[in-house]
Amino acid sequence: MYNLMATAEKIRNMEIRGAGRIAVSASAALRDYAQTLSSLSPEEFEKRINEAARILIETRPTAVSLPNAVALTKKHSSRNVKEAIAEIVDNSERFIKNANEALEKIGKVGARRIRDGDVIMTHCNSHAAISIIKTAFKEGKNISVIATESRPRRQGLITIRELNDAGIPTTLIVDSAVRLLMKNVDLVVVGADSIAVNGALVNKIGTSQIAMAAREARKNVLVAAETYKFSPNTILGQIVEIEDRSSDEVIDSAILKELPNVKVKNPAFDVTPPEYIDLIITDVGAFPPAMAYIVIKEYLGLDMIDLN
Amino acid sequence: MYNLMATAEKIRNMEIRGAGRIAVSASAALRDYAQTLSSLSPEEFEKRINEAARILIETRPTAVSLPNAVALTKKHSSRNVKEAIAEIVDNSERFIKNANEALEKIGKVGARRIRDGDVIMTHCNSHAAISIIKTAFKEGKNISVIATESRPRRQGLITIRELNDAGIPTTLIVDSAVRLLMKNVDLVVVGADSIAVNGALVNKIGTSQIAMAAREARKNVLVAAETYKFSPNTILGQIVEIEDRSSDEVIDSAILKELPNVKVKNPAFDVTPPEYIDLIITDVGAFPPAMAYIVIKEYLGLDMIDLN
Amino acid sequence: MYNLMATAEKIRNMEIRGAGRIAVSASAALRDYAQTLSSLSPEEFEKRINEAARILIETRPTAVSLPNAVALTKKHSSRNVKEAIAEIVDNSERFIKNANEALEKIGKVGARRIRDGDVIMTHCNSHAAISIIKTAFKEGKNISVIATESRPRRQGLITIRELNDAGIPTTLIVDSAVRLLMKNVDLVVVGADSIAVNGALVNKIGTSQIAMAAREARKNVLVAAETYKFSPNTILGQIVEIEDRSSDEVIDSAILKELPNVKVKNPAFDVTPPEYIDLIITDVGAFPPAMAYIVIKEYLGLDMIDLN
Amino acid sequence: MYNLMATAEKIRNMEIRGAGRIAVSASAALRDYAQTLSSLSPEEFEKRINEAARILIETRPTAVSLPNAVALTKKHSSRNVKEAIAEIVDNSERFIKNANEALEKIGKVGARRIRDGDVIMTHCNSHAAISIIKTAFKEGKNISVIATESRPRRQGLITIRELNDAGIPTTLIVDSAVRLLMKNVDLVVVGADSIAVNGALVNKIGTSQIAMAAREARKNVLVAAETYKFSPNTILGQIVEIEDRSSDEVIDSAILKELPNVKVKNPAFDVTPPEYIDLIITDVGAFPPAMAYIVIKEYLGLDMIDLN
Amino acid sequence: MYNLMATAEKIRNMEIRGAGRIAVSASAALRDYAQTLSSLSPEEFEKRINEAARILIETRPTAVSLPNAVALTKKHSSRNVKEAIAEIVDNSERFIKNANEALEKIGKVGARRIRDGDVIMTHCNSHAAISIIKTAFKEGKNISVIATESRPRRQGLITIRELNDAGIPTTLIVDSAVRLLMKNVDLVVVGADSIAVNGALVNKIGTSQIAMAAREARKNVLVAAETYKFSPNTILGQIVEIEDRSSDEVIDSAILKELPNVKVKNPAFDVTPPEYIDLIITDVGAFPPAMAYIVIKEYLGLDMIDLN
Amino acid sequence: MYNLMATAEKIRNMEIRGAGRIAVSASAALRDYAQTLSSLSPEEFEKRINEAARILIETRPTAVSLPNAVALTKKHSSRNVKEAIAEIVDNSERFIKNANEALEKIGKVGARRIRDGDVIMTHCNSHAAISIIKTAFKEGKNISVIATESRPRRQGLITIRELNDAGIPTTLIVDSAVRLLMKNVDLVVVGADSIAVNGALVNKIGTSQIAMAAREARKNVLVAAETYKFSPNTILGQIVEIEDRSSDEVIDSAILKELPNVKVKNPAFDVTPPEYIDLIITDVGAFPPAMAYIVIKEYLGLDMIDLN
Repeated sequence: MYNLMATAEKIRNMEIRGAGRIAVSASAALRDYAQTLSSLSPEEFEKRINEAARILIETRPTAVSLPNAVALTKKHSSRNVKEAIAEIVDNSERFIKNANEALEKIGKVGARRIRDGDVIMTHCNSHAAISIIKTAFKEGKNISVIATESRPRRQGLITIRELNDAGIPTTLIVDSAVRLLMKNVDLVVVGADSIAVNGALVNKIGTSQIAMAAREARKNVLVAAETYKFSPNTILGQIVEIEDRSSDEVIDSAILKELPNVKVKNPAFDVTPPEYIDLIITDVGAFPPAMAYIVIKEYLGLDMIDLN
Repeated sequence: MYNLMATAEKIRNMEIRGAGRIAVSASAALRDYAQTLSSLSPEEFEKRINEAARILIETRPTAVSLPNAVALTKKHSSRNVKEAIAEIVDNSERFIKNANEALEKIGKVGARRIRDGDVIMTHCNSHAAISIIKTAFKEGKNISVIATESRPRRQGLITIRELNDAGIPTTLIVDSAVRLLMKNVDLVVVGADSIAVNGALVNKIGTSQIAMAAREARKNVLVAAETYKFSPNTILGQIVEIEDRSSDEVIDSAILKELPNVKVKNPAFDVTPPEYIDLIITDVGAFPPAMAYIVIKEYLGLDMIDLN
Repeated sequence: MYNLMATAEKIRNMEIRGAGRIAVSASAALRDYAQTLSSLSPEEFEKRINEAARILIETRPTAVSLPNAVALTKKHSSRNVKEAIAEIVDNSERFIKNANEALEKIGKVGARRIRDGDVIMTHCNSHAAISIIKTAFKEGKNISVIATESRPRRQGLITIRELNDAGIPTTLIVDSAVRLLMKNVDLVVVGADSIAVNGALVNKIGTSQIAMAAREARKNVLVAAETYKFSPNTILGQIVEIEDRSSDEVIDSAILKELPNVKVKNPAFDVTPPEYIDLIITDVGAFPPAMAYIVIKEYLGLDMIDLN
Repeated sequence: MYNLMATAEKIRNMEIRGAGRIAVSASAALRDYAQTLSSLSPEEFEKRINEAARILIETRPTAVSLPNAVALTKKHSSRNVKEAIAEIVDNSERFIKNANEALEKIGKVGARRIRDGDVIMTHCNSHAAISIIKTAFKEGKNISVIATESRPRRQGLITIRELNDAGIPTTLIVDSAVRLLMKNVDLVVVGADSIAVNGALVNKIGTSQIAMAAREARKNVLVAAETYKFSPNTILGQIVEIEDRSSDEVIDSAILKELPNVKVKNPAFDVTPPEYIDLIITDVGAFPPAMAYIVIKEYLGLDMIDLN
Repeated sequence: MYNLMATAEKIRNMEIRGAGRIAVSASAALRDYAQTLSSLSPEEFEKRINEAARILIETRPTAVSLPNAVALTKKHSSRNVKEAIAEIVDNSERFIKNANEALEKIGKVGARRIRDGDVIMTHCNSHAAISIIKTAFKEGKNISVIATESRPRRQGLITIRELNDAGIPTTLIVDSAVRLLMKNVDLVVVGADSIAVNGALVNKIGTSQIAMAAREARKNVLVAAETYKFSPNTILGQIVEIEDRSSDEVIDSAILKELPNVKVKNPAFDVTPPEYIDLIITDVGAFPPAMAYIVIKEYLGLDMIDLN
Repeated sequence: MYNLMATAEKIRNMEIRGAGRIAVSASAALRDYAQTLSSLSPEEFEKRINEAARILIETRPTAVSLPNAVALTKKHSSRNVKEAIAEIVDNSERFIKNANEALEKIGKVGARRIRDGDVIMTHCNSHAAISIIKTAFKEGKNISVIATESRPRRQGLITIRELNDAGIPTTLIVDSAVRLLMKNVDLVVVGADSIAVNGALVNKIGTSQIAMAAREARKNVLVAAETYKFSPNTILGQIVEIEDRSSDEVIDSAILKELPNVKVKNPAFDVTPPEYIDLIITDVGAFPPAMAYIVIKEYLGLDMIDLN
């Protein structure tokens, strides 16, 4: 159980971070742990596997890719422990392979939606969104990017560095300049933290106002999302909770202390309604937001959720 | 002419700043300068006054309050130099008095639009908007404010300090959090850099997306604007040009140098269309945006513009 | 002062009701009262007239036609008491004549907007709206009306009786059926309790959702409003307060008493935003809502309001 | 056949009423009747079952839950009569169990969408909508409700009594006050009479204008609907017809008789377009409206409809 | 009276055509006719002038520029015939001078709204719209135009010839391609047949769907309109009637004859609602549509209309 | 291979035209060709069949019905050549049967959406749309049609002839008159060239602005589309390219030659976003646009596309 606990700890303390890396590590840890349990009785095995799953899931309560990875890995039908372990190993290998290939597949599908000459706006720093942009650029399309700063953590600075290194002409703007510059944009491409059953997108704070400005100016919005970003529990009505982060990201705490009537609200994400999204680009194809249930059912499985 | 040139220089180098202070200083400088010209011939007087007006106006080409102040000050009907000077002195005193009282009047009119319990969102640091908020608070209304950071210059930090010092409960947010928090807002109150003949508002970058988010959620938007912020030249079709400011405000220039494919676009203002504005609160009353022509005609005068 | 007090009392206890009748009665009472003051000193005269005006205005604090009638009646420029009285008598006679002719003028102007074959939806019981409909019908246009019940007081039953008596084919619906039937409607015609400086309409509860449904289906909305329904004080930022009426109008009080967790909210009016209104038909012509300031200025006068 | 005919009669004369009770009774009656047919030939059995189904369905032509219950109950694959009866008995028991549990399941799923402090607007008297509200309240969420009167039959009075008895703070309003009060609402929760293949909602007259007002103010709309409320025949293009009810519900017939030019239009339902609905809460999970076809296919079955 | 009748006949038979030329000819004819009446009594003079005005106006009942020209020309205050004639001569000369200069003034004001690099869409063949485009091009702005064919009369072919001859790069499209190409457009510039008091634009059939497509894509719409295109009678509620033209413009009459169940509807104009228009460019400046009343009042005069 | 090449040639030179006839011919040609290959080795068979498929598909690169027909025909699971041929023959017969019955099925489903008295607008000349209209008319519904001319090729003239011959009252309009006449329309019914995975409709140029005008006026839009019009490759992100056709269709080439600064843009299709479409009527039922993926998956099969 050592590796399991170590991995859980690394996820908890953010040594392992990024939705994809977390998901892959958790799946691998569960796989490895399962392989140590071959001598147990079926009942004991089930108990331990479920406990391990719980430990992993609780490290980061709000991310959906982590419980998806764990649920996809642990599911097995055999009551024979050795066979169950084999199923889990298979599940994990398939999950890890898919996860590793997902960015490339999203890149290929999404790049087809980009035309020569397009100006693309992106927000924050999404591997999947950048994969689409880079793939289109490598295919020889003459494109450029407008990247937002993405306060408070300014992940836009990472994005502009990655685009710069790929040779893609890029313009950095502050988040407040989105609507003014939207008239020069052809296409918005953003990533996803989570996608709900009705196609609503939970993503970095600011995404929803970019999508709103795009809709106002009749520009298309693509969301790049691995299938493991879809949230099965939203079928049960679960609301994706928005994490509030530290005020330190927004204002120096020494200044804040001088201002007794002032507090800071620093939500990490916002929710973009499905009517502002044209297509969700996944590793299994492009879908309109209303298809989220089908993606969940076909690629994650409804057995993850408990309707009773 | 010493004081005139000195004032012009101080406006140019931003020693004198803020639309109101610039306008008042320019009016006073022109008034003082006019008083030095009493021995001139009428022709020479006209020439000098017009030249002085031009010098003042050219110090800050984009602000509308400066040419409005100069035009309102210099207008005179008498061909007799002494009488013309008297007219100019009168004009200047009236302009300065009105300008000095404008914030208080706007505060009184605007505060009537605020109800007990309202949560008000504001952007950047507008004296006129803050006057409305403070007046309502002083009248005993139990209100609170959500203030945006207002990147890149973060004038929101000045705003939260002013509101803190007035004892008003205030929440600071990043600019990207506007749409998420709009659902908690009752009223948006912002200032103005300039108002065009069709009621479009030129104001700090980000204003237009706040107004768009307010409209999407059926929240009212008040614009606080002194009458001298209205732009007579837009009646002639003139477009209010948006100033692009230095990239240094957005990103450290050392970092930018490392990124040859990256540039920065840093527009200082954006344009809010009139359909996103409910009322413009001025020192002469509250008007819908479509009334901008009437405000210009009645309070600035059409003689400022040349229709031929 | 007997008649003044008697009239005030009748307005207060709703013996005199309806915006038009209230306005006319108050104007007449003030006129008659003024004529009893001819022997006073100018100072005393002013004091008494202002006091009488205040008494009349306070009888029904929310209606705008009453203070408009009083303000238009009492204004005078002469410091000579006899001349001042003559001015007031003149004012009152002009106001009463205009008020009496207003419905007919509104009928003539509004009827021109109705085409042969039109189906008109109306709400509550507005004399001005009905004047438009009847005028069009008398001109030989083959029209029909859909009238809402207008809960809680069901003034729609008065409306259908008036339309029936005029021979106009009429369909009564419940207020909830507005959107379903809007697809059969060509034009919405409603009255006004008050019109704000930005063209917003304060009218019988339910008006704003009729206007919203009309806009959704691209049907025009006409508002029939006498000039004395426009509210000068909204130029000063004043909000038109919505009166909450007794729960008895909605539910039997005996039933309500049995339900300790239930209360009733019974607002008498709602506010229709100007973007849902196509034209306001007044006794001095048809205007878009944004012209409300001009109507106030030209027909009521800005001297009614105190900008300082 | 006695019970079958008796049940049919009770449904027809509304002794048995409410979509759920009708569906359950019809399923049970068909089940019981099938069990009396074990001695028949397969051909005769099919004939009788189809005839019984027809009799039940024709009792209330417009409700969709009744034909759904009958079709789900009668379907069988075996040509052996005894086996067919067993299938029908199984179908009926499953249907009745699901129907009985549906309200509770809807309550659990829907309650997750309600946050502490929410103000919920509801319309008419929907068991499923009230189940959501009560479940959230029982879970300890501090919520309150705004309930519409729901003219003409005023089913809102039943709703406020149920909510009162559950201890939930409730405000009663007239239907015309919906838009004015929408600004105080966090969430709209309504029931369903029928849901079409494109997600359009057929429900009590007035629902569509509540949903429109919610969308205008960016408030979410939840529809609570048992799976048997979805209409398979809309896949074939069938339009859900809107029943017109008696004028007596709207106006006293004695009054109406005096008004020869007046008639009453009293539609029982209206149609809410899917773009005004955020989620449909069913007994098998939460879905966006566009998923109606999938709900029909997976939970009712396409074999109910005849594409040829 | 010979010239008067000859001019009337030429307008009637369309020998004189185009709103501007018709207006100027009618003003001149009335001026010349007035000068022949100097020996008449005041009563006879009034009678003849009014009769002449009526004859001119009735030649083309739907155009608004013609009655505007006549009304502006004939108005006089003196009861002395010689003085009245002098007033009429003055009126006519001022009207003709203004009309002749209007296109140039509109060109100058409108051209300021065009930026270097703009792609402009125009419809039909408007002198005023083309004046704006040509002025911007002559000022050295690098612009191009998308011109619609403008079925049925294909006036777009005249427009592309004029733009070609001015050296302006132009693309011809069919009317159905407007929405597809709107994404490439920066600004729409169209002319006007008439402008109503609420700012609604009556112009060549198809204009309103271009404006709607522009609004959908957040593109600005400029309307180029001489002040004499504003319709004073719309203040009285008058509807601008849409002329239906011959089916021959749409389909060969021989073909139509073979098709007994087919008819043609060929409206010459449509109505663009004011909310789709950003600015109206006139010879006296740029205005939002809601200012139409002010343009009518200040530049045409309310004495043209009869409010009683 | 003779027939295969002959069919390919006829499709290429448009001797065989119309999406349905092309699809059926290609399927038959592939079926016949397959039957000539029974003596080949499995490897050789696969090679030839794939080559034949490629030849057929390349005859008309943009139509989606052709590759759909070929892919549905050629798919087989057996490695035994005889069995594979039998599968292909079966596929082809099923495809041809379905295609032949599709118009009738669409007619039946779509006609149910039409009510007695409806005025239907249609565009261009769609067999499927006309099938719906004619079916409704034959069922005895009293309907009429507004048909657009559909420049540049004026296929509306074919449509009005077909409707005339069916006895259906029809009105012909120019494409620019769509928005003006939309107020008289109850329902829009158009055909489809291709439907993308998000439900976007690619159809004759002008369709999208008709749908936009319908939405603006709250009128429903039905799209009539055979299942083989849905585009599987859009799941891979493929954009449906819009064909630009010859300028000769728009303007006489002799005139164009005289105009060196003028060019013509003549796109054959435009893209209607799914939010402007209410239902897609197919041969397998009615679906909302968001269901396009399900139609593709269930009726065309995902094996057509290569996600890797």
